[in-house]
Amino acid sequence: MSCLFESFLSTPEVTELLSDRAVVGAMLRFEAALVRAQAIAGLIPQAAAQSIMGTCKVELFDVPKLVRESAQSRSLAKPLVSSLRETVSLFNPQAASFVHVGCSDQDLVDTALSLVVRDVLKLIETDLGQTIQTLLKMAVQHAADAMLARSQPPWSALTSFGLMCSQWAAPLVRSQRRLQSACSCALSLSLSLRQVSEPQALAALQDKGPQLITLMAADLQLNAPDFVGDSAQDESVALACELGVLVGSLGKIAADIAHLAAFDIGELMQATAPLASAPGARPAPPLDIANLCMVAQAAAQRVPQQVAVLLAMLSQAHGSAVDHSQAQLAPWPALLTASQGICHVVTQLVTGLQPDTQRMRSNLEAVRAGLPGKSAKARFSGEMATQAVALAHTQVAALRAL
Amino acid sequence: MSCLFESFLSTPEVTELLSDRAVVGAMLRFEAALVRAQAIAGLIPQAAAQSIMGTCKVELFDVPKLVRESAQSRSLAKPLVSSLRETVSLFNPQAASFVHVGCSDQDLVDTALSLVVRDVLKLIETDLGQTIQTLLKMAVQHAADAMLARSQPPWSALTSFGLMCSQWAAPLVRSQRRLQSACSCALSLSLSLRQVSEPQALAALQDKGPQLITLMAADLQLNAPDFVGDSAQDESVALACELGVLVGSLGKIAADIAHLAAFDIGELMQATAPLASAPGARPAPPLDIANLCMVAQAAAQRVPQQVAVLLAMLSQAHGSAVDHSQAQLAPWPALLTASQGICHVVTQLVTGLQPDTQRMRSNLEAVRAGLPGKSAKARFSGEMATQAVALAHTQVAALRAL
Amino acid sequence: MSCLFESFLSTPEVTELLSDRAVVGAMLRFEAALVRAQAIAGLIPQAAAQSIMGTCKVELFDVPKLVRESAQSRSLAKPLVSSLRETVSLFNPQAASFVHVGCSDQDLVDTALSLVVRDVLKLIETDLGQTIQTLLKMAVQHAADAMLARSQPPWSALTSFGLMCSQWAAPLVRSQRRLQSACSCALSLSLSLRQVSEPQALAALQDKGPQLITLMAADLQLNAPDFVGDSAQDESVALACELGVLVGSLGKIAADIAHLAAFDIGELMQATAPLASAPGARPAPPLDIANLCMVAQAAAQRVPQQVAVLLAMLSQAHGSAVDHSQAQLAPWPALLTASQGICHVVTQLVTGLQPDTQRMRSNLEAVRAGLPGKSAKARFSGEMATQAVALAHTQVAALRAL
Amino acid sequence: MSCLFESFLSTPEVTELLSDRAVVGAMLRFEAALVRAQAIAGLIPQAAAQSIMGTCKVELFDVPKLVRESAQSRSLAKPLVSSLRETVSLFNPQAASFVHVGCSDQDLVDTALSLVVRDVLKLIETDLGQTIQTLLKMAVQHAADAMLARSQPPWSALTSFGLMCSQWAAPLVRSQRRLQSACSCALSLSLSLRQVSEPQALAALQDKGPQLITLMAADLQLNAPDFVGDSAQDESVALACELGVLVGSLGKIAADIAHLAAFDIGELMQATAPLASAPGARPAPPLDIANLCMVAQAAAQRVPQQVAVLLAMLSQAHGSAVDHSQAQLAPWPALLTASQGICHVVTQLVTGLQPDTQRMRSNLEAVRAGLPGKSAKARFSGEMATQAVALAHTQVAALRAL
Repeated sequence: MSCLFESFLSTPEVTELLSDRAVVGAMLRFEAALVRAQAIAGLIPQAAAQSIMGTCKVELFDVPKLVRESAQSRSLAKPLVSSLRETVSLFNPQAASFVHVGCSDQDLVDTALSLVVRDVLKLIETDLGQTIQTLLKMAVQHAADAMLARSQPPWSALTSFGLMCSQWAAPLVRSQRRLQSACSCALSLSLSLRQVSEPQALAALQDKGPQLITLMAADLQLNAPDFVGDSAQDESVALACELGVLVGSLGKIAADIAHLAAFDIGELMQATAPLASAPGARPAPPLDIANLCMVAQAAAQRVPQQVAVLLAMLSQAHGSAVDHSQAQLAPWPALLTASQGICHVVTQLVTGLQPDTQRMRSNLEAVRAGLPGKSAKARFSGEMATQAVALAHTQVAALRAL
Repeated sequence: MSCLFESFLSTPEVTELLSDRAVVGAMLRFEAALVRAQAIAGLIPQAAAQSIMGTCKVELFDVPKLVRESAQSRSLAKPLVSSLRETVSLFNPQAASFVHVGCSDQDLVDTALSLVVRDVLKLIETDLGQTIQTLLKMAVQHAADAMLARSQPPWSALTSFGLMCSQWAAPLVRSQRRLQSACSCALSLSLSLRQVSEPQALAALQDKGPQLITLMAADLQLNAPDFVGDSAQDESVALACELGVLVGSLGKIAADIAHLAAFDIGELMQATAPLASAPGARPAPPLDIANLCMVAQAAAQRVPQQVAVLLAMLSQAHGSAVDHSQAQLAPWPALLTASQGICHVVTQLVTGLQPDTQRMRSNLEAVRAGLPGKSAKARFSGEMATQAVALAHTQVAALRAL
Repeated sequence: MSCLFESFLSTPEVTELLSDRAVVGAMLRFEAALVRAQAIAGLIPQAAAQSIMGTCKVELFDVPKLVRESAQSRSLAKPLVSSLRETVSLFNPQAASFVHVGCSDQDLVDTALSLVVRDVLKLIETDLGQTIQTLLKMAVQHAADAMLARSQPPWSALTSFGLMCSQWAAPLVRSQRRLQSACSCALSLSLSLRQVSEPQALAALQDKGPQLITLMAADLQLNAPDFVGDSAQDESVALACELGVLVGSLGKIAADIAHLAAFDIGELMQATAPLASAPGARPAPPLDIANLCMVAQAAAQRVPQQVAVLLAMLSQAHGSAVDHSQAQLAPWPALLTASQGICHVVTQLVTGLQPDTQRMRSNLEAVRAGLPGKSAKARFSGEMATQAVALAHTQVAALRAL
Repeated sequence: MSCLFESFLSTPEVTELLSDRAVVGAMLRFEAALVRAQAIAGLIPQAAAQSIMGTCKVELFDVPKLVRESAQSRSLAKPLVSSLRETVSLFNPQAASFVHVGCSDQDLVDTALSLVVRDVLKLIETDLGQTIQTLLKMAVQHAADAMLARSQPPWSALTSFGLMCSQWAAPLVRSQRRLQSACSCALSLSLSLRQVSEPQALAALQDKGPQLITLMAADLQLNAPDFVGDSAQDESVALACELGVLVGSLGKIAADIAHLAAFDIGELMQATAPLASAPGARPAPPLDIANLCMVAQAAAQRVPQQVAVLLAMLSQAHGSAVDHSQAQLAPWPALLTASQGICHVVTQLVTGLQPDTQRMRSNLEAVRAGLPGKSAKARFSGEMATQAVALAHTQVAALRAL
């Protein structure tokens, strides 16, 4: 599928983390961790595990061929498992029969997804942390820079740019906390111990089940599941929801910045050098802000629907004839790409932001002049300004304490 | 707007809690709590507060007229505030000027929504608790009742009805926990201390801000906000998302039950008396199960989109000319109605459920007979059955410990 | 369910057309038309038909009781049919057995929906027609009023307000045409001739099927279905999609107007008297435009999801145990309300619009002054202005010819 | 972005048509058609046009580099135009300045999308035609094969497999007709004649505008736009909606088939050789049907949301600072992939379908035996069967006449 229509809305980093090669790599890490744990637990020979682990290297696989075969077999997992078995048997025929034993295809793809999501979330957390730090710093720095509060017409109320920054930061700080909580539940290993047809082997597997889970979770740095064979997706969808909330809060920041950076308002600009302009003239329009906001809004508009698809898929009957477990993962790449994309551009927007405090004041004066004396006095009093400053400081303190 | 197209998908209880009368009542509770706190804090005369509190009774208001006026004024809050002021001034003209002071219209509607949501969540929690208890009880009771695992074709694997019950329960138990956590953040009082134009009054208000918040939150039994003037909706939307996840998990249970209760499969029936049927014939089809599942699936299909609307609204620019704060609440009644509706019918479904263990066994035998001997032996071995029993018991223990 | 959270986003007209009373009225019109046609076709006695038709008056029914009963019976149709039968038997016991014969419950509710949708669409068409006429008139009138084209940064290109009006109008004209086409397929009678258990009666019904359809469609002024028993919802969902496209185009107009009417840009104002302002000051902010745009954007944000629900419901298995035919109608009232709401407020916005052509020119000059000489000359040349004028006239001519 | 999570849900044909290479190819076809038309119209030298046309070959371009650059430049169009200009200047430096003149970047990407969509729609139309033909053939062939009508509990009504086939076909026939109508509006060339800064060149362009449009539309086999500079997306989104309706109708067929092919019901099977099974046993479960239905349902669940995103994007303000015109295209590849995917698997499902008419009869008998005599007689009378046969024939005739 074409990346062109999307690539200009994402980052090279996330494109790399979500490449076919990376996904295949994550699947191989699962298979390697599985046999490593089974060997430690004494379920399979050490030598077989070594052979398999040595073969679980993405560079040994023809990734485009796996993509094609997944389309033919209508399965994400089967072509990789077959290919791994074949490759192992080239080096160590005895080992091949120990590949992908005691787990389901869904275990493989669910765990691979957990690994991929975890890597993308690291990017998101880094950007999010930087955005929050920058906003809180600006909140203090510009606490006293008065500006029009445009949210409630008549827009004849006053806020400060610092207060606006702390109000932008507040939901991000809460999202940061909630995302951590969601990750501590969702990024888990999946292991169901199914698909072993020989009674003795099954009994052995089951006996060692908890040990396998502990070993594999530690190896892959994932959470251990609540129990074996719990394949409900509620926790990963809850994590997707938290991404959705974060994207909404980031989208609002981008929309506010786009509005305030528009030529006619001009209260926000890029910190970096503007386009050439005639002397004495208004500065050139903020080309890059508009472009970054475009990326942000494209994400903010699509992510809610992607979350809705994941929510809707929760209610599919697994008891019915059709196995949806692999199709359930399909919405994730686009969701992760858009979420990381907006997170990154908002970091760029915020870190490169230059408030034009003089313009803020002149816009404010223009409104004040248009109001009847008494109303103007009341709405733009020094007390209002003091309140904004105090509020900004209070919020920053509260947010830092969270 | 017609309730007819929806009323058969909801319950009378939630319809009552979300009636215009109930919403107006919640708004009046906010106004009463506001003046009560302001009087205690010494900001307004005790007598004025008493008059206003005495007037904050929903039976004193013409609710249908308020609905009509909200359409004319394009505001949810303004008609009520005007009407309250007018009514107060009939009894105590001096008190009228102390109505709805030091707060915004958004404070009023947001807090009223918190009150309404809290009441509906109580219904949801009660049903959810009962569903979980029933499922865990059945999980133990039917741990050894083998049945076909239909999720993965060829459906020649074995599970037990008890294991299925514990797998249904697992995401519900987690939702219960996550909902509590979301509520502890989201069901909060909103108070912004805006709209006071006299400097001294404003300063006084601000001084007493924390006290007002503490008093009102205690009075209304809501959470206190992180800080004054934090109007971001991220926490209430995160709560909506948790409802979305819960609805998805409930929807899956209903879909599984619908499938297993279908005439041709017949493994689940209603516990209560079936329709009349000829002697020796198969029991009459489970009319009510189908009807309850219809309600559940209607909810499961609509709630994801309702969550998507709330997520999308997060990214609206408040810095722009348009004030969306009241329109943001519009998706809530339908979301709450559908969520409570599915929660209630799943409780009904689960508590009235009668597994036909004999039919489960005969369906299973029919499949086993169709498989070549070796495969049948492997897939339907006693060990598999033992595993299902053990797993069901482990899961119930783990879930009870959560 | 509370109307309060929504009523300020809709109009009294649509609230009336979608009231429980109006829906019950539409259902009664179906039942009356059914017996009238059956009597003409000689299937039932004329006297029975007269009795039933005389009873099909909404004022004879206890509408709130029907709503409550529909919740209990989990059916939209059954309580009304029972109540109609009872009421008929009070006056003419023999006639009662001829009520609701030879049709399904889905026929009743689907046809009632067609009637309700048709009435709402009349409101929408009236508003839409007026909006288009006003826009085309302004397109000619303001063809030469140059303004900044803000869509492509650097916003240093030129358009004219007239051209903007014709570009707003273009998708509306096409929507008008496509809506008519969709209506000519979708607003149809539903008649399946089911539920007659006596062979002879069934044969008679079937014989007269085409005649009944012709008579009833003419009576109710609905389209006749392609054939008896075609209950697929594709055509009504296609109509809903067209409403979705219309709402999107209207939402863009409202968003553009909100932007251009914002205090800082000030190129659009209300035609009617502004708020009081100090002499010589900028005019007071356009309170009502913001309010109307809020209503429009609330609709534009919700309608896409409502369409998505209807699309998703198309793929529900009717062959399964669960009958979704009545639940499929549930999203319609909210969809119609939001669609009519945005259509009406955009008509209000457009008809009350007052472009401030002087402000347009001064904003444009401010940008031109900021550009290097050569670029400014090129982008704001007289030829560009002439092109805008010509284009506006061409578009209006083309649109009038559609 | 990884294809792995999606590739098993799509077909190699659509993956090829939507590859980056194909999209770049479509963009180059636009650029070639543009200069060809401009040369014919005498606006640019024939030799320059020849050079450019000769360079518009996708094999001359480094497609992965273009993808990377589009991410850096936040633009889909700019890297290709730059690269084309550079490549042209290698061969014919004078010609480079005639590249991409007199059109906007949005013209380029919108037209490229039209070309890509047209190619995918050809695949869809082929599959859709075959599905309809097969269904209508089966409708006649199996008109008299009675089966249970499971849609309305108690499922004690009768239909025939042929009638079910014609009811499946009906919305597909209508979708076919509506899709053709939508294509005749939507698959259009986009040409705005913008971005020419020299007055004379602009005047010349404008003069030849209609001629250019006619030439290019013929060359690219696209529809000519209603007028120059009409960039509203309403018609392409209306086309997307029609795909959404089609996907819904196809999803229902797949859901019905999944249900009827489930082991426990067994009324539908694959025509091709089943899996090995013990003699005398029920046939092995229909593995492939389940797999194809999984693909179909994954599409049916995602497409409604993808349509919702496109609908929501219609209401973005173009008058604001941010240019969304390229981001608007982003949802299309996933929408086309899913739509073509479901269309193809339903063709496979339907053409390989083998009704087990004996099983249909025995299932029916089992229900009839369970009903009291009178009701059974009524509901399963010969007249009902005759009606189903007659209805199937009527529907096929009506559908063939559409």
